[in-house]
Amino acid sequence: MPKLWTDTVADHRRAVRDAVLDATAALVAEQGLASVAMTQVADRAGIGRATLYKYFPDLESVLAAWHERQVAGHLAQLTAARDRAGTALDRLAAVLHAYAWLSRGHDGSQLAAALHRGAHADAARRRLHDFVRELVAEAARDGRVRTDVPPDELADYVTAALSAAGAAEDAAVARLVAVTLDGLRAAR
Amino acid sequence: MPKLWTDTVADHRRAVRDAVLDATAALVAEQGLASVAMTQVADRAGIGRATLYKYFPDLESVLAAWHERQVAGHLAQLTAARDRAGTALDRLAAVLHAYAWLSRGHDGSQLAAALHRGAHADAARRRLHDFVRELVAEAARDGRVRTDVPPDELADYVTAALSAAGAAEDAAVARLVAVTLDGLRAAR
Repeated sequence: MPKLWTDTVADHRRAVRDAVLDATAALVAEQGLASVAMTQVADRAGIGRATLYKYFPDLESVLAAWHERQVAGHLAQLTAARDRAGTALDRLAAVLHAYAWLSRGHDGSQLAAALHRGAHADAARRRLHDFVRELVAEAARDGRVRTDVPPDELADYVTAALSAAGAAEDAAVARLVAVTLDGLRAAR
Repeated sequence: MPKLWTDTVADHRRAVRDAVLDATAALVAEQGLASVAMTQVADRAGIGRATLYKYFPDLESVLAAWHERQVAGHLAQLTAARDRAGTALDRLAAVLHAYAWLSRGHDGSQLAAALHRGAHADAARRRLHDFVRELVAEAARDGRVRTDVPPDELADYVTAALSAAGAAEDAAVARLVAVTLDGLRAAR
């Protein structure tokens, strides 16, 4: 049973929520999406079934919340990569590396397909897209990224191209980032 | 009722098959994947239900056959683009344009997700990948494509990057191809 007794009600609720999301992620990894039941999630999280239903009405909403937490974590990592010192192009390159590594494991599985449906996934895609677009636009203003293609389209190109990292070998990820970045830079 | 009486048994079988696939594609487009039934397919194709079942055991196999026919058509279009006159780079560019246009409509819909599961879809992906890889390798031997990244990885990059055409506006497709091609060419 995890330590759930923390100082405030808000902390307590967050700890329960996190325990539920961790338990669900572990169960899905172990046995696949289709066979996970709310009862198992409650057991694994160390809470009662009735308590679980006070937090989440069904498994779908648990998975959506888990995915939102993942996306928030990924955005935090991308923000950390962006906020390093360097030129706009350095920071763009750092973000593309981080993004490529985060893309690994996004393998078109049944779980990924289930998570990527729906409104929360659309919002997540939009946030990631806007994040990349801003960096691209900044590097373009510095004259380090091509200006013959709108930043919006370049951001679409980046996120599409880097999705190839999902199935790539470790050594290939840096090469994929280099190729993708060369597409952004060249203006012939 | 379509004209199904042709010269040979093989021609006849092919005509029935094509009528079934056309009927299925039309029904899916009209009413979505979930509600299409074999009886409707038979009606629309102008054949009896018993005849339909001699060709296909279930709707899933009809859809797989339809997707295989689509892939074969796409490969034929890519081959036509490849076989134009010009340098290896010209032909690569022509194929990337054709590929980008063919990617439009691959929108992550339920139908696409259903079609892209399973062994026949894996085989189709492999064929498209090998097709692009060969062209990339040829242009690399000509010194027109970078050689610091293996053709296999460059082919993965190309197919991933061009998937952004799926949601792009018409005017953006040529720009996406240009950006993707610049990623292939640059060797800094």
